[in-house]
Amino acid sequence: MFQSYTTSSDPGQGASRVALLRANLKETGLDGFLVPHGDAHQSEYLAPSEQRLAWLTGFGGSAGFAIVLADRAAIFVDGRYTLQVRDQVDLDIFEPVAIAEILPGAWLKDNAPEGSRIGYDPWLHTRAGIAGLEKACADRNVVLVPVAANPLDAVWTDQPAPPTGRVSLQPEELAGEIAQDKIARIAKIVAEKKAASAVLTQTDSIAWLLNIRGSDVAHNPVALSYATLSAKGAVHLFIDERKLGNSVRAALAPFVEIAGYGEFTDHLAKLGRDGQAVLLDPASCGKAVADAIETSGGTVIEGTDPVTAPKAIKNAAEIAGTKKAHVRDGAAVSRFLAWLDREAPGGAVDEISAAKALEGFRAETGALKEISFDTISGAGPNGAIVHYRVTEETNRPLDLNSLYLCDSGGQYADGTTDITRTVAIGEPTAEMRDRFTRVLKGHIAIATARFPKGTPGAQIDGLARIALWKAGLDFDHGTGHGVGVYLGVHEGPQSISKRSTVAFEPGMIVSNEPGYYKTGEYGIRIENLELVRPAEAIPGGDREMLGFEPLTLVPFDQRLIDIALLDADERAWLDAYHARVRAEIGPLLEGEDKDWLNRATDPI
Amino acid sequence: MFQSYTTSSDPGQGASRVALLRANLKETGLDGFLVPHGDAHQSEYLAPSEQRLAWLTGFGGSAGFAIVLADRAAIFVDGRYTLQVRDQVDLDIFEPVAIAEILPGAWLKDNAPEGSRIGYDPWLHTRAGIAGLEKACADRNVVLVPVAANPLDAVWTDQPAPPTGRVSLQPEELAGEIAQDKIARIAKIVAEKKAASAVLTQTDSIAWLLNIRGSDVAHNPVALSYATLSAKGAVHLFIDERKLGNSVRAALAPFVEIAGYGEFTDHLAKLGRDGQAVLLDPASCGKAVADAIETSGGTVIEGTDPVTAPKAIKNAAEIAGTKKAHVRDGAAVSRFLAWLDREAPGGAVDEISAAKALEGFRAETGALKEISFDTISGAGPNGAIVHYRVTEETNRPLDLNSLYLCDSGGQYADGTTDITRTVAIGEPTAEMRDRFTRVLKGHIAIATARFPKGTPGAQIDGLARIALWKAGLDFDHGTGHGVGVYLGVHEGPQSISKRSTVAFEPGMIVSNEPGYYKTGEYGIRIENLELVRPAEAIPGGDREMLGFEPLTLVPFDQRLIDIALLDADERAWLDAYHARVRAEIGPLLEGEDKDWLNRATDPI
Repeated sequence: MFQSYTTSSDPGQGASRVALLRANLKETGLDGFLVPHGDAHQSEYLAPSEQRLAWLTGFGGSAGFAIVLADRAAIFVDGRYTLQVRDQVDLDIFEPVAIAEILPGAWLKDNAPEGSRIGYDPWLHTRAGIAGLEKACADRNVVLVPVAANPLDAVWTDQPAPPTGRVSLQPEELAGEIAQDKIARIAKIVAEKKAASAVLTQTDSIAWLLNIRGSDVAHNPVALSYATLSAKGAVHLFIDERKLGNSVRAALAPFVEIAGYGEFTDHLAKLGRDGQAVLLDPASCGKAVADAIETSGGTVIEGTDPVTAPKAIKNAAEIAGTKKAHVRDGAAVSRFLAWLDREAPGGAVDEISAAKALEGFRAETGALKEISFDTISGAGPNGAIVHYRVTEETNRPLDLNSLYLCDSGGQYADGTTDITRTVAIGEPTAEMRDRFTRVLKGHIAIATARFPKGTPGAQIDGLARIALWKAGLDFDHGTGHGVGVYLGVHEGPQSISKRSTVAFEPGMIVSNEPGYYKTGEYGIRIENLELVRPAEAIPGGDREMLGFEPLTLVPFDQRLIDIALLDADERAWLDAYHARVRAEIGPLLEGEDKDWLNRATDPI
Repeated sequence: MFQSYTTSSDPGQGASRVALLRANLKETGLDGFLVPHGDAHQSEYLAPSEQRLAWLTGFGGSAGFAIVLADRAAIFVDGRYTLQVRDQVDLDIFEPVAIAEILPGAWLKDNAPEGSRIGYDPWLHTRAGIAGLEKACADRNVVLVPVAANPLDAVWTDQPAPPTGRVSLQPEELAGEIAQDKIARIAKIVAEKKAASAVLTQTDSIAWLLNIRGSDVAHNPVALSYATLSAKGAVHLFIDERKLGNSVRAALAPFVEIAGYGEFTDHLAKLGRDGQAVLLDPASCGKAVADAIETSGGTVIEGTDPVTAPKAIKNAAEIAGTKKAHVRDGAAVSRFLAWLDREAPGGAVDEISAAKALEGFRAETGALKEISFDTISGAGPNGAIVHYRVTEETNRPLDLNSLYLCDSGGQYADGTTDITRTVAIGEPTAEMRDRFTRVLKGHIAIATARFPKGTPGAQIDGLARIALWKAGLDFDHGTGHGVGVYLGVHEGPQSISKRSTVAFEPGMIVSNEPGYYKTGEYGIRIENLELVRPAEAIPGGDREMLGFEPLTLVPFDQRLIDIALLDADERAWLDAYHARVRAEIGPLLEGEDKDWLNRATDPI
């Protein structure tokens, strides 16, 4: 079982832990310390050894930032966590701050004594992040001081050891391109940027480049590691060597120089001493990396991680693999929805048992490596919490005549899935059906869009919303994010939102997930993953056009559709999609599950 | 008459003029010189005295850049001008370069001898522009040298004098806010940026701030001038004082310190000597401005021109004024279209006579100050040239069974208009009607959109295109630009394009002008100006929404509409729009013009 439903935090421990930290800071002459949620790799999920913010404060959310001063401390959270943080931290120790209202820099300026020296771990902050804080409190002569060793690691006496998850090879038939060829491609990009080397600190970039997968953190099959890649194609990998078995080591040896994780800094210093110009991504690279290069005589070229764009464009093997994964996953999710239809109206299902059942159906495929993220299993009003994570405390039964929203995914060796379905338990109201249908219209508008090369996500985002906008409604999240192939369920550079400036290219995968949320009542989200591909030419058309092909194959709940709100094209798309679901998923189902699928995919 | 239809350029003069420039450069020890299209104010239209590029090269386009070296010279133009430039310059002297393929910096790197000293006029280039060029050719030790006096002004012996167009006051009933109040508002923004002063070099910003209008350049009612505004509200205006009559001088005297245009540099040096932090807009401010401040001891704070955002949000008086202007202009354009319907099928109209007739109908309103820009009067294949400007050489008759595209506007004391209509002369083909209707669907999608606060133009741009995209078609320009009130017909910060990140706010004006262009055959564009305003609340809606109200009131050509392609909502919008046109414009028309309007606004 991959998901836990307990809350491990205990606000009561905050006071003693903060006291330990303050004592340590005093010894080293610091007046405060910055504690971000994050590791040196901008990992989406943190290894237990990296959960310093949670250990210190008790706060268990997926994003946050604490500042501890000698006599006060604050924890900054976004809108998702303003309620949760109050339950999880000791409010006598930590002042919860909404980061949308007061930024850490502004708080520091108002609260740090004139001339304070505030420490930070330079591996956990970007240069721009530190520069922004410094600028915000420059008036107060507050100085930010990088520390050589994180004081939290000194006072956290039972800190777990860093993970040593085994690394495996991603076989060529799934990766579609051998690592040596990828290295040659990326080295060329490094040379074009006029850099002698590039530093890679993002673990999914390293996994993709070397065709390896890891098991250090939850949900993302990556290994905590660093790498450098020279413009001539020489690769150095810095990783705890216990993670590497003989076969992996043998496979990498011909073209990768392997060294310990701790030797990365020395290597950066060597690049610097060689006078190299080194490419690094300022958005994800810790300040320590740039500093190590520059202080030893090198220069830094700031630019996007050179793996990001090539990784986003899936090759034929990756596309074939993820299509197989989506059929397999679609059958598991369909079995789950069939089970739900049988069980839920009787009152026997709650959010946790539903999530467990879904994980079980996925596990029964025999191919599940992990779930892609903690399942969002939201009944009734919990469905309206966009990033809801069910715990024993919040668990709700799936009540009759309510909506149930389930956003989940699986990691398989051949692909990564991410799907959201919203279903009626019992009888939905007319309002629920109206809202569901408007969300569906937005989903179909994206699914059926065709657009010229060069179109970025921002330009089509409004198509997903206009049916809601016309009713005075909207949703407060992006319409879609990039997705990897047996890698991160969130990856760049493409996305669909008002801020998406990256043009779609064939081979990209993006989610299509408009929603509607009525606080305290219900939530609706409809999500398929879409593959970007060339659109068929149209007689009379004079442009090369792209379009989407749905990868996800699971029926939509027709009980929630108000057919009168759909136009003929939308109805035709829906029927064609359901026919495809029946044709591709049907053969994998049996008995009452198959009967359910046939009913669920009937033409409307 | 405001528009000329002649081409004044003569390629034959290029050789002798370039020889004069080269001799001058040799004397001053320079190996080359940069000649941009532009003045110190980033003016859209240049005063005759500022048309150095045209004088030197013969090229008459609205954007371009020349580099003259000792033994070679190049002229860089964008895609609109790649053909035109070859007719207008001496190809023995100037190598035409497509700027999309080779940037000036790359050309300089490949062509300037090692160690060259290339001069430039620091008033005509931004800091970023010069830095980019320096970076591009740093390998070659090419040095860019600012000159104190532009050598072109030395060799251009019959250079026209700078304009001395009279300045007038924009009355309070049209401006809606007295200048002192505007100054107080903008001074607050300057203070918030922690600047002691702001420099304004954009003439429309100065015109808006001081409620003045000028007549120095074509089409834009602005005065060539600079201004500074202190955070305490002190204003200095630098302008050729011959432009100011006694009443203007008396009106400004209480709150504006007036000095000569040439005294601006000394004033910047004074701000510097006072140690001021000075806000300037790096996108529009000449490098000379920043240099003058810094070399005398001041500091520069880079930021958007503080007038830009407030100017974009029109107040009640400006909105009332521009509505009146649009009714007046709509009647003039309707009379033109009625005349065209009577005259064109007989074969008696060509592009120039049409543009002259349109200007005549606008002039007959008795209120026309200027046309907003050179009318784009494109018959048949000329309609497919997006930025077409008719000359005696290109003039075409409006042939039977073709399309005619007319994009034009008027400057009135109470508002600025910009309208495009495409009409059938004789019988349109089925393809023309299909394309026109798809463009119209895009236009209606924008006109009827409602969207939450915070929506930028990029997010709705796709709505204007999806009907074309579905047919494999698109158009290669933005969907809309901001428009002033008796000011620039192009102004920021809002726009509708895939790159528009600025959120709409009530009171902004934006054009809505999708199109379709079939090279060598015909062009279609449909443009209304739209006012951003709060949308009426919808029962059940839970968001504060914005929407558009069309300002432009002129019928669309129903002969070009394929009704079967419109849905019921689109048909209803069209009939309601035409009913409004009839109600508001009808009372201003008489006789056969009125009969024409009644027919043109019949429900479909």
